[in-house]
Formats: sequence, C-alpha cells, structure tokens
Amino acid sequence: MTADFFSAIPTIKYEGPDSDNPLAFKHYDPDRQVLGKRMEDHLRPSVCFWHTFCWDGFDVFGAGTFGRPWHKLEGQEMAEARLEAAFAFFEKLGTPYFAFHDVDVMAPAATMAEHVENFHRILDPIEAHMERTGLKLLWGTANVFSHPRYMAGAATNPDPEVFACAALQIRHALEATHRLGGENYVLWGGREGYDTLLNTDLGREMDQLGRMLSLAVEHKHKIGFKGPLLIEPKPHEPTKHQYDRDTQTVYGFLERYDLLEDVKVNIETNHATLAGNAMDHEVAAAYALGIFGSIDANRGDPQNGWDTDQFWNDPLEITRTMIHMLKNGGFTTGGFNFDAKVRRQSIDAEDLFHGHIGGLDALARGLLSAAKVIEEGTWEKVLSDRYSGWDRGLGQKIMSELSLADIADHTLSEGLDPKPRSGRQERLENLIIDAV
Amino acid sequence: MTADFFSAIPTIKYEGPDSDNPLAFKHYDPDRQVLGKRMEDHLRPSVCFWHTFCWDGFDVFGAGTFGRPWHKLEGQEMAEARLEAAFAFFEKLGTPYFAFHDVDVMAPAATMAEHVENFHRILDPIEAHMERTGLKLLWGTANVFSHPRYMAGAATNPDPEVFACAALQIRHALEATHRLGGENYVLWGGREGYDTLLNTDLGREMDQLGRMLSLAVEHKHKIGFKGPLLIEPKPHEPTKHQYDRDTQTVYGFLERYDLLEDVKVNIETNHATLAGNAMDHEVAAAYALGIFGSIDANRGDPQNGWDTDQFWNDPLEITRTMIHMLKNGGFTTGGFNFDAKVRRQSIDAEDLFHGHIGGLDALARGLLSAAKVIEEGTWEKVLSDRYSGWDRGLGQKIMSELSLADIADHTLSEGLDPKPRSGRQERLENLIIDAV
Amino acid sequence: MTADFFSAIPTIKYEGPDSDNPLAFKHYDPDRQVLGKRMEDHLRPSVCFWHTFCWDGFDVFGAGTFGRPWHKLEGQEMAEARLEAAFAFFEKLGTPYFAFHDVDVMAPAATMAEHVENFHRILDPIEAHMERTGLKLLWGTANVFSHPRYMAGAATNPDPEVFACAALQIRHALEATHRLGGENYVLWGGREGYDTLLNTDLGREMDQLGRMLSLAVEHKHKIGFKGPLLIEPKPHEPTKHQYDRDTQTVYGFLERYDLLEDVKVNIETNHATLAGNAMDHEVAAAYALGIFGSIDANRGDPQNGWDTDQFWNDPLEITRTMIHMLKNGGFTTGGFNFDAKVRRQSIDAEDLFHGHIGGLDALARGLLSAAKVIEEGTWEKVLSDRYSGWDRGLGQKIMSELSLADIADHTLSEGLDPKPRSGRQERLENLIIDAV
Amino acid sequence: MTADFFSAIPTIKYEGPDSDNPLAFKHYDPDRQVLGKRMEDHLRPSVCFWHTFCWDGFDVFGAGTFGRPWHKLEGQEMAEARLEAAFAFFEKLGTPYFAFHDVDVMAPAATMAEHVENFHRILDPIEAHMERTGLKLLWGTANVFSHPRYMAGAATNPDPEVFACAALQIRHALEATHRLGGENYVLWGGREGYDTLLNTDLGREMDQLGRMLSLAVEHKHKIGFKGPLLIEPKPHEPTKHQYDRDTQTVYGFLERYDLLEDVKVNIETNHATLAGNAMDHEVAAAYALGIFGSIDANRGDPQNGWDTDQFWNDPLEITRTMIHMLKNGGFTTGGFNFDAKVRRQSIDAEDLFHGHIGGLDALARGLLSAAKVIEEGTWEKVLSDRYSGWDRGLGQKIMSELSLADIADHTLSEGLDPKPRSGRQERLENLIIDAV
Repeated sequence: MTADFFSAIPTIKYEGPDSDNPLAFKHYDPDRQVLGKRMEDHLRPSVCFWHTFCWDGFDVFGAGTFGRPWHKLEGQEMAEARLEAAFAFFEKLGTPYFAFHDVDVMAPAATMAEHVENFHRILDPIEAHMERTGLKLLWGTANVFSHPRYMAGAATNPDPEVFACAALQIRHALEATHRLGGENYVLWGGREGYDTLLNTDLGREMDQLGRMLSLAVEHKHKIGFKGPLLIEPKPHEPTKHQYDRDTQTVYGFLERYDLLEDVKVNIETNHATLAGNAMDHEVAAAYALGIFGSIDANRGDPQNGWDTDQFWNDPLEITRTMIHMLKNGGFTTGGFNFDAKVRRQSIDAEDLFHGHIGGLDALARGLLSAAKVIEEGTWEKVLSDRYSGWDRGLGQKIMSELSLADIADHTLSEGLDPKPRSGRQERLENLIIDAV
Repeated sequence: MTADFFSAIPTIKYEGPDSDNPLAFKHYDPDRQVLGKRMEDHLRPSVCFWHTFCWDGFDVFGAGTFGRPWHKLEGQEMAEARLEAAFAFFEKLGTPYFAFHDVDVMAPAATMAEHVENFHRILDPIEAHMERTGLKLLWGTANVFSHPRYMAGAATNPDPEVFACAALQIRHALEATHRLGGENYVLWGGREGYDTLLNTDLGREMDQLGRMLSLAVEHKHKIGFKGPLLIEPKPHEPTKHQYDRDTQTVYGFLERYDLLEDVKVNIETNHATLAGNAMDHEVAAAYALGIFGSIDANRGDPQNGWDTDQFWNDPLEITRTMIHMLKNGGFTTGGFNFDAKVRRQSIDAEDLFHGHIGGLDALARGLLSAAKVIEEGTWEKVLSDRYSGWDRGLGQKIMSELSLADIADHTLSEGLDPKPRSGRQERLENLIIDAV
Repeated sequence: MTADFFSAIPTIKYEGPDSDNPLAFKHYDPDRQVLGKRMEDHLRPSVCFWHTFCWDGFDVFGAGTFGRPWHKLEGQEMAEARLEAAFAFFEKLGTPYFAFHDVDVMAPAATMAEHVENFHRILDPIEAHMERTGLKLLWGTANVFSHPRYMAGAATNPDPEVFACAALQIRHALEATHRLGGENYVLWGGREGYDTLLNTDLGREMDQLGRMLSLAVEHKHKIGFKGPLLIEPKPHEPTKHQYDRDTQTVYGFLERYDLLEDVKVNIETNHATLAGNAMDHEVAAAYALGIFGSIDANRGDPQNGWDTDQFWNDPLEITRTMIHMLKNGGFTTGGFNFDAKVRRQSIDAEDLFHGHIGGLDALARGLLSAAKVIEEGTWEKVLSDRYSGWDRGLGQKIMSELSLADIADHTLSEGLDPKPRSGRQERLENLIIDAV
Repeated sequence: MTADFFSAIPTIKYEGPDSDNPLAFKHYDPDRQVLGKRMEDHLRPSVCFWHTFCWDGFDVFGAGTFGRPWHKLEGQEMAEARLEAAFAFFEKLGTPYFAFHDVDVMAPAATMAEHVENFHRILDPIEAHMERTGLKLLWGTANVFSHPRYMAGAATNPDPEVFACAALQIRHALEATHRLGGENYVLWGGREGYDTLLNTDLGREMDQLGRMLSLAVEHKHKIGFKGPLLIEPKPHEPTKHQYDRDTQTVYGFLERYDLLEDVKVNIETNHATLAGNAMDHEVAAAYALGIFGSIDANRGDPQNGWDTDQFWNDPLEITRTMIHMLKNGGFTTGGFNFDAKVRRQSIDAEDLFHGHIGGLDALARGLLSAAKVIEEGTWEKVLSDRYSGWDRGLGQKIMSELSLADIADHTLSEGLDPKPRSGRQERLENLIIDAV
C-alpha cells in the first residue's frame, strides 16, 4: 500500500515555460548550463524528511489530516515503509539530495539505549536505498527538541543529564551522517533558548551551548568528517527567545567560543523573516562574515507571526537572494533544502508534488533571473562605481594610515563639502524586476 | 521670555506615594538608601537635549506644535537661550546628569569650518552652567545622521569625504565630552545601514564602520578620555536595516574589529523592542557578554512599529530589567538617560515635567521592587538550585574534561533517563509581580 | 489516582498582600466590597476546561509533557476522571464559574451519531458535579475546528455537509449550555477564514457564516435560552486570515447580517494584541458599539507572534482595561474566563494553581486600581472637560442642525483660530500608574 | 529654472520587454487591448502631488535632501512654479490623472480666510494646465492633519472649532474637486484616532466622524458632485490608533452611520499591510461588501513597521490583487494613484521617473499576468467547483429554508461523514506564479 502511494504520479519532467501540465517542471531543467555550471549543481536541491514524510497534518488547533498509509503502521515496519515512500518520492521528483533528523527515519524509542539501537537498525536500509537510487545526503541532524526531556533545552538544559542525552544523539547522528556520505551536519537549537528569562541563567546557558558545539567539532575531526557543522539561526518558536537569533548573532557566538573555522550557518528563509531580517540580508551577511553554509528554502506568511514553512515561491525575493549567491560563488557543501510543508488541507499525494515542483521551479527561475542580472553587468558596475572613492586617495588613506585627528584636519583644510549622489534605489529595483 | 518659560513650575520635590500633587515625586527620593546605595547613585538619571529642547513637535505628517520661545530665535542667540532653558529645567527637576549631540547645543552651521567654530563657541556657556548648577554630563555624542550629507550613512557612506566630515564631528564631540567631564561617549549609527541592499556593499560598509570605531578608540586614548565608547544598537529606522541591530549583533561586531576592551553598549528600550528583543533580555545579554554600558530609558507603543520614544513607565518591565542590573552591580559609568519625548499634543511647559516626573518615579519604583526581589532571595535561590547540577559531578565534567563520545557512553552505561522538573514560570512571574 | 492529583494542594485562601505563601491569594478577596459590589461579582471568574484539563503540553515542535493521570485512561472513563479532576481543582481554587467546548468534556467520538451520544452521556455527571459544588457555567461552546473534517472551516466550509456537521454540534452544545444554566454561548470561528485567498470565495463564505449565526440565534429563541451568543474575534491562527478579525470587524458583520440584537463579543486579550489592537481599545470599542459581552483573560508574549495564551498578569494593562469596564457598568452576563495555559515546562499540579492564583490576583489588583481611579475622579473630569465644547453652542449645533456650508461660513465669519490645548497624555499616564 | 527641471528627461515611451533603456516603459503600453479594454482604461493611473512635488526628502531623523528649485521660492510664486513642474512631469510620463490635497497646490496660509483665498487663487492655473494638457483629476482631498490645529484630530477633535475649520477645508476642497471635474473625493483621517485612549472618548469621536461624513455627503449632493466619497483606511500612524482601521472596519462604520450608498474605500497597499491584511484580501473584501472605490498604489518594507510609501513593484502581489479586480469588473470611478515617494537618497529628477516608470510597468505587468489567469480559466473553475455543493441540494436548503434543528437531524439521519477534499493551495500558487 505504501509502495503504491505515489503510483498515480508520473516521473516529473522538464517541459518548459509553455507547458500547462501541472505535474511538469516549467523552469527546473537540471542539465541546463547557467553561467558555466549545470542548474542542478547550482541549486543542489534536497527534500526534507520531517515535513514531507513524518508530519501528519496536525496543528495546535487540530488533529492530523493526511492519513498517509505508513502512519497506520508501527515500529521498524513503519520506519521502513516510510523510507520506501520517501525514496519513491525522491525518484519521481528527481532531486539529488535529501536531509533528515535521527528520529525522522527510525522507529520510535523509549530509552536512550533503544534510540541507539533503532537508529542504527535503519541505517542499512537507508544506505541500500541510496545506493540503488544514487540519492545523496545533503545533511543529517539530531532532533534534540521534540522529546519531553528536552522541554527546557538540550545543551542549554539546567540538567546536565539532559545535555548528556543530547550529546549521545548528536554523536550518533554525526557518525551516521559521516557513514552515509553526508556533506554537512546541521544543528537547529529548537529549544536552546528560554520560555522566560525569569528562570534562566543566560551566561551559563550560552557557555553550555558553546561547549556542546566545541565537543561536536572535536568529534567531527576525530571521526574524519570533512563537512562543516551548520547552525540554523532562528529567533524564537517554540521558545520565547532562542540564542541563535540570526546570522550576525551566530557570528558573535562563534567568535566567542572560537568556532569560526568549523561552523557555518544554515539560513532558513522563514527564520530570517521571523527575526526581522530580509533573506538577502542574511545571505549577504553570511558571505561577508565568511560563514555562509546552506539554505533551508521556505517562506512564512507575510501576515502571520509564526513559522509557516511554506514553499518558497516569491520570484523577486529568490532573485535578490540568488544574486548575492552567484556573486559570491554559490554553494560549496550546502544546497537548497526544502524545509517546507504542504498545507494541512493539501491532503493528496499529488499535493506533495505540486509543492516541490513549485519550489524547484521558483529556485530555477530565480537562478535564471539572477544570472541575467550578473551577466548584464549594470548592477555590479553601479555598485563598484558607488564605492570607487574607497579604492583610491582619501578613501584608501582613511582605511590604512590616517588618524581621527588627521582626517578631521584634512576635512577642514580641504574645506570638504561632499557632493550628494543619488542612491538610485528605484532604478536598481527596476533593473532587478525586469530580470524576473 | 525663555528664562520665564518654566517660571510657573515649582522645584519638584519628593512627597511620597500618598501625595496627589502631580508636580511632585511619589517614589523618586534621591537620598533614600536602597541596598546600601543612594537611589540617585543607582539610577544616575540624565535628561536629553534633543527631544526636550530641540524638537518642536513636528512629525512626518505635520508641523511643529510646541512653539517654544527659543525656537523663535536664531543662531548663537537661540543656542544660548535654549541652553538657559535646559538648565532651568534640569535644576527644577533635580536630575544630576544631562546628555547632548553636538548639533543640539550649538548654532546651526553651513560648513564644516562653521561647525567647529559654532560648536566651540557654545562650550564655554555650557561649562559655566555646569559649574553654576553642579550638573554633570552623562555622555556626549555627534549627530552624524541629520544633515543631508549623511543621507547614505556617515562612516558607512560610499563617499570617503562624508566619512571625513563625520570623523571631524566625532573628534570634536569626543574632545568636548572629555573637556566637560563627560563619563561616556555614545555612537548611535542612525544611518549606518542601508535603505536597499541593492545599492550596498555590506562587507565594505562594516569594515568602514569598524575603522571609524577603531579611530575613535585610538583618539580617546590619545586625549586621555577614560570613559567607554558606547554603541547604541537599533535594528532600523530611519534606515531599512541598521548594522548595530541589537546587543548580540554589536558583540559580534566588536569581536570582529577587536574593540571589546573599549566599546560597550548603550541599550535603548524602544530599540530593543523594535529589534524583537525584550529589554531585560538585552540587559542580561550585555552583562553576560561583558559589554553593558548605559541605558536610554524610553519605550515604544506595543501596537506601533516605529520609535515612539515615550517615557518608560511600565512598572513590571522596569522591575524585570532592574533585577538583572542589581544582580550584576548596576551602572558603573552609565546611567538612565531619558531619551524620551512628550507627545506632540503635550504642548505646555508642565507636560515636560509630567513626562520626566513619571519617568523618574517609574525608575525609582522599579528599583524598589527589584531590590525587594533581591533582598527576599527566593528568585536567586530558585535560579541557583535549577542549575546546581552544573556545579558538580557530571555537569562539571561535561564542561571541563569529557569528550562527546565519553558523554554518550556515560549516557548509555548509566541508563540516563533524566527526571523532568517544572520550570515554575508562573510561580516566578507571581513573585516578581507581587514585588511591583 | 486522578482523585488524588491535587491532594497535596490546600484550598486557596485570601491572605493579603503581605503573605509570602505562594499558594494563597494576595489580592483576590471574593467578598470585599469594591464600588458597592462584591469583588467576585465584579470579576465573575471562570476556569476553562481545554487548556487546563485537556491539553497535555504538546506543541508543534514536541510531544506532551504533563502526563496527567486521566490522560492515561480512555473513553467515558477518561471523561469522567477528567471531570472529577476539574471539579476538584475548581473547588480548591474557589472560582464560581467554568467554561467548556463539547469535545473537552466528552469521550472521543468516531461519528456524528457517537458525538451526540457521548456528549449527552457526560451531561448528567456534569450536572451532578455542579449541584454538589455550586459551580456555574459561564458559557458553553462547540469545538468545530479540531476534527479533520473542519480543516477548511465549519460554517464557511466549501462542503455543505461539513456545515451540517457543525450545525449538529452547535445545536447540541447550545441545548446543553441551556440545560446546565449557562449564562452565555460562545462561537470562536477557529477555521472560519482561509489559508489562501486563492481557493476562497470570500463573499460566499461570509454569507455562510452569517447564515449559521442566524440559525443559532433562531434556535436559541426556540429553546428559550436567554443569554447572548458571543463571537470571539481573532485575526488569524490557525488560519492565515479569520473573518472575525476584531471587535469592529465583528460589529460590521453583525450589522450586515442583522444580528446586533442577539450577538455580542467575547474579547480575548491575546487575540486583541494579535490583531494589532490594545485590549483597552477592544473593550472601549465594544462598549461604544453596544456589543460588549465577556472576556477571555490571557495574554501573548510581546516578542512572539502567535497565541501563547499565558495568564494575564500585567497590572497596568489590566487596570486600563478595567477602568473602561467600571465606567460602563462591567459585566452583565459575561465574566473573566481564564483562557490561559501554564507553560509546557510547568508540569506539576501546583503549577496549575500558580497560574490561576496569579491570574486572579492580577484581576483583583487591576479592579482595585481602576476603582481608585474612578473614585478619585480626576480622570473622568479631565475627559469630560476636554470634550465639553461639544455639549454646548457650536458643538451642539454641529451635531444637530448646521450644514457643511453653514459651518464653513461660520468659521470664516467668526475668524475661528482654535487655541491649542495640551492632551496631557503624560499626566494621565502618571495618574493611572500611580493607582497601580 | 523650475521649467527646466525635467528638461534632460525625454518623453517616456513604450519600448517593450527587450528594451534596456531605463527611461522607457517595458510593459506599460496604454493602447494595448487587454480583455477588450485599453490598458490605460484598466489602470487609470494617477500621480500624486504631495510626495512628488511637495515633500523635500526630510524625515524624522534628518533634513530635506531634494532641493527642488521651487522649494526655494515662496507664496503664490512657489505654488505656480510647483504646478508647472508637476504638469511638465505628468506630460513626460504620459499618465492621464493626478490627485492633490488642497495644501499641496496652494500658497501657504496663516488663517482660515487666507486658506480660502490662496486655495481659490490656484484653481485657475490648475484649470488652465488641465485644459492645455488634457490631464484629469482622479480625486481631490483636504489636508486636515498637518496643521498644528489638527494635532488632536479634525472631525474627532475635542474642540468643535477645529471641526469647523476642517469642515471649511473639506467644503472648499470638495467644491474645487467638482469644479475641476474630479472623479472622486477622498478622506484620509490622518489624525482621526488617538495618541492615547486615556484622554479619548471613543464613542463621541466616532459620532463626530460620522457627522462629518454625513455633512460631506449632503454637501456633495447639494452641489451636484456625482463621484463617490472615498475613505482611506489606515490602522495607525501618525496616531497610535486610527478609527478607519481597514476595509471591514470602515464597512461597519458606514453601516452604523448609514453612509453605505455614498461612501466607498480608497485602499492603500501600505496601509493594508500595516493593518495586518494582505492587499488582495482588502480588495476582495471591498468588492464583497460593495464598497470598492479606488487604490493608492504603493508598498511598505516587509521589515519596517511604518508607512514607507515605496513604489509598488512586487509582480506577484500585484497579480493576485489584479485577479480580484478583473473578476469584479475593475475600477469604475477609481484608479491607481501612485501614493508613493522616491527614497530620500533618490535626489535627481530622473529618480522621479525611475520610480513612476517602475510603478507603471509593475501595474501593467500585473494586469497582463492576471488577464492570463482569467483567460486561461482554471482558477475560476477550481473555485466554482469547490463551492458547487452550495448551489444545489443540501447547500441550497441550508441557505434558504432549513432550521438548525432540521440540519442537525439531517446530519444524523443521513449519517453524514463528509469526504475530505484537498484545498490545492500549492497547485493554485503555481498557477498564479506561472502567469507572472
């Protein structure tokens, strides 16, 4: 039954912009060359396990609506059926990568010992599916926020025994990621924050979090895992306040605990907007600070204040983000992971395809639009002209040799009265939008 | 006429909680001992120049409403009349400190040369007023955001000549602050950010900002100024995005440009809330990171998304914030600066007093409530109990010696199954509120 | 086991503001006279079933943490054990009212027929508990949003059969409320809105909602139920957009479908803030429009954008709200229902008491502060003075007889140049805060 | 000098999507037929006076940056120079409409008598320019919020003399609009709300606002003005709370004061988003409630919480909005008014063109995309299928004849168990985005 779940859905093909087949790609054409690289190699798209194969459609106000066949099974049988469904989906969609938390793929466990056992028991089947299909693991991670033991945090829990349980999960998830050839290892600190500052020792908890990261870095080197660790910033939810607020906050944290060499960020669009930042800002900041890692592609609802994790399909926002990626060389180990879920009313197998097809097409389209902007060249020229004063004369001297008093004296002696120049915002907006 | 502006207002006295005199303090009693220190020495209150003596009540949708007598004058005469009014106000209110931007106190200037001249011309009168009254300068600063030349930023301007103009202003404001015995020097990067990322080179601009800070630090040492430089975080407004987003963002910036020793933060309540942070979070984070400096006491409107700069008078929020201050030793060089303005409809001289009296009483009340919580002791005991596992055994070993693998092995070998403990949020909230 | 769940907790007594017993009231003293009425009769406090006895502490990111003993039972046995626990709680707390949805009190049902059967089977036990304890029902309601059938709305569902199922639940919940002597009947349109406007016929859905309301009003009259129907406004969540956005939106809806006589609003604090409105605004607006009904007392988190349903304990906000209530005569059929839940980490029986004790004390304190403001009289005097021009002369004529041209002519002929008067916002804020 | 301000700018022409001329239209082609109507007749675009010719680039944190030549003049000379510049701009841009507030076009006035005089003195020149160019007036309005006398509101002022001054301005602006052939008359209640509820009598103020509207309606009929009055909803800013919060709030207000026949809404995109509503929601709601009037085309910044009034250029949001417009017949008397301003750094004459060209192209593109969706037909078919159950059988009977009890009985007797159907959100999103 599970095997048949997607049987009515054809393998998804590229049919071009004029196709009116809703189960075909209009823009995502993996082998198309864009700025000298295959589209798929630019995008490195990945499907996530949790939203697409574990979630049953429940929300805080109501029960699950999806009724997937594997949700009716239990234990290892359920885990293997779910895995089979997932790989059937991956193959029909044609994406090269997937991503998972330990608990997404395994049979539920009642104790830590059972956790290790059940998790290890699913690794062979995963490996077999990967070999069979050629699918690759973009990243693995441990879910150290859903079990009630983590209600007050994992690394930042006031109880060191909880830290220890989390350490166990992270160790095994990291080793499994390594075994499966995963290219990155992600840490989202879902409850690494607080519900109320009144019962929280902020400094202590940040030190604990720093310690966990350092231990994971050390372990990564010990086992020979080459990929980066990726922190996934989020400002809050489920906690009132999460320590990994946004890219720049994470940067300060990495500096403080001396982790800049081994840890980067996995930026999620919806988390960025919840933090009050534009997605292109987060990406540009991560590149500027040298910590750009990967992207969880999704979006929130502009009118709602929680993590709706919808498919990212705003052509303009994707284009603006992709421009910064292209300018900075794009992904190295990272990729676009669809950390996105179909809506609770989208209960059919085909809805899972509509969501991911739309998501892939949107990324492809954004890539093409951004490539157009980069190739056309005006944007980069406007930018370099705008700052050209810093590459010579006074600008250069300010950055290298003059003191505050020198500069002040120069201002007076030269009678400086800088000529205002237009910022040309509307012109640049038109330029980008014309490329969309 | 200016001299008489406050003539109908009596000197404000402490009359206690039962007074129904709106022009008296109910809680602010400067000499009252609180936890072994005078109330005034805890609060170190300061009145700001800009909102209270420079702003005429205009907003984006309408013209000024205040019609202060000095607003009808011009040039140096205006500047001196305004100064006189300000000190008359300070004296009647009885606050020990004030704060200003260069352009708040001086006659307007058309050129940089005139700027230096006019600014220096007002320093003698300021000094005379300070000597006469005993008032002290909490901090000085340079306004490098209002003049049209700064429309695209000061330190982060694409034109190095604009940086040079800002450097000149900062140099003179820093020197004047030093001369007047100021205890801190503040930098609010009003336009150090961008209106659109499309015309912005983020990495370059952050380097420029780092450079300006380094130059100011160097100059501070050169002239022998002992107080800290204070960055004032704000996420946006007037810009779309400001680089000094919040305390943790500033921390990362200071780490990056090696400024942690000389630069701290001046936290503004309204800026904290605009950034999506609770004020007590910002203060606790600043202490935890070792960069707590001073506070701009004000508040926003919970339903409005811009900087309303109202008087901070929420007894609960102030108490929560003050608890963290008392626990961490309170201010050293900093103080509570009323960066707050009476509403546009509050056009009378007495309204300026209502605003500041309410603000002072609110701080005094928050201090007393927080002191009660600290003295009573339950709160600190709950907190230290909650984390006590980290001071011994497994907790200590996790932080110092064990590896990830060790901890994971320990978890399994001991069969760890940590017992959940209540976070007691409601109990702690009641405890704090009972003290308000 | 269920019976013993609260056995360690004493009956909660009033001990006054100086008590340091966390399991005692400091301010809530039911028989205390306030402005000529018992405190309990002002507040009419009610405990809700759903958060306090049905929710197990789960959230979107993690499983339940509470492990209440009755959650381990099933069917009617579970329902009766839960009921017993609830009444044990009510009695120890000493609140006079409670409130429930049909599904909160009954054994789960697989079909509509079973729904009717199971719901009816629990009514006798409820009635028996009520008789035994003297507890009263503030309001009943039907949950027509949690079952998967309601994923696209109840009354506003595109499928009329779903409307029919909701009609069945509403009919029986309304009749049960009547039978149990309930004083109001509430409708919260949890999914009466949309997830995307793209699949929604707004006009049609509003007509369907109007129809359901009209049918309920007609049925209420038919069965002789005297209390009002109460719509509970909320802007969104779980939907992207809910039709009953806020009090003024509901007013327009009631006008449109001619329901103003029989339907009022049940205002929830957290919903008000999610809608971008201050709670005192919602209450003042409801009185001004003649549709004030009842209040769901809770609060959100100022930094989080979803319905956190925390206990309402902000003394200042409650005072401001209560002033409008006292001025307008307070509740008639309504009351303060604690639609609030303890945090997910607050797992102990005593935490449920801390939450409700804090909530009751906060309301009591707000009532006392507001009564002080009303008795003192300045606030109402300032207000009536401010508008006094409208009670005479030009003001009266404008409202009754003059035309636009008359008024314009009068302006010119009299050379009107109205003298600005201070709005005295800071003075009034101080006045209210001094009473807190 | 004023006459030459735009001399370097060519008349803007349509050059098609492949043009790389930034001073040409890529999509706006006035005579192109779209669904049987000229593009210009669909869009009815209008340029506003205030942002484009009156604002000098100031903001709350800094002085004006634009230095337009007419800003250096005074009185009637300034007013006529500004008018000349505006019409030079209109002609080069080629838009058929404009819109203004009384104070935007006239010489500043010190008294109400002078107001009438100066306003009337500019009408002849306006009329002459209109005749010469063929430009038409989309709407006129009175600015009753900028002058200090309106600091506490115009119609809702506590002082009836202020109401009288506003009445005078509205009378003359309405008459001038009539004289100039204006097609609508707009009322934006900039300060018709409150800064604090503490000094506000909400019920009274709403009655005053209702009275002003009724007087204006009566006057409109008296003078024979045929166009509708249009209220422009906004939730807040400059006030803390404005009474005309959003479309549905305005609907309730119009019902209450019996104004539905003569008053409609002028929906502004940025105001919609500030109110927490999607723009397509506001438009769909206005059509559903029969009060759709006109649109102020602009946008806010998704990360900023104030009215940034940027050019509306999000292709997806415009398409979604335009679909509802096309489905409902589009504009009758209304149009797209560019209530949008170039950024403070966009100081050159050409920036005004970039802004408006981008805005026009975005509307044109949205129209074409929406027309594609309408012509293709799937969207409307999905919608009508989804609700088809309401057009027959049970659905029809529910809406017309059955009682609540009847429906409940039917549910049981038929054993209803409605089959869940997918909401197809992702499919519909893809459909719309493919058309963009």
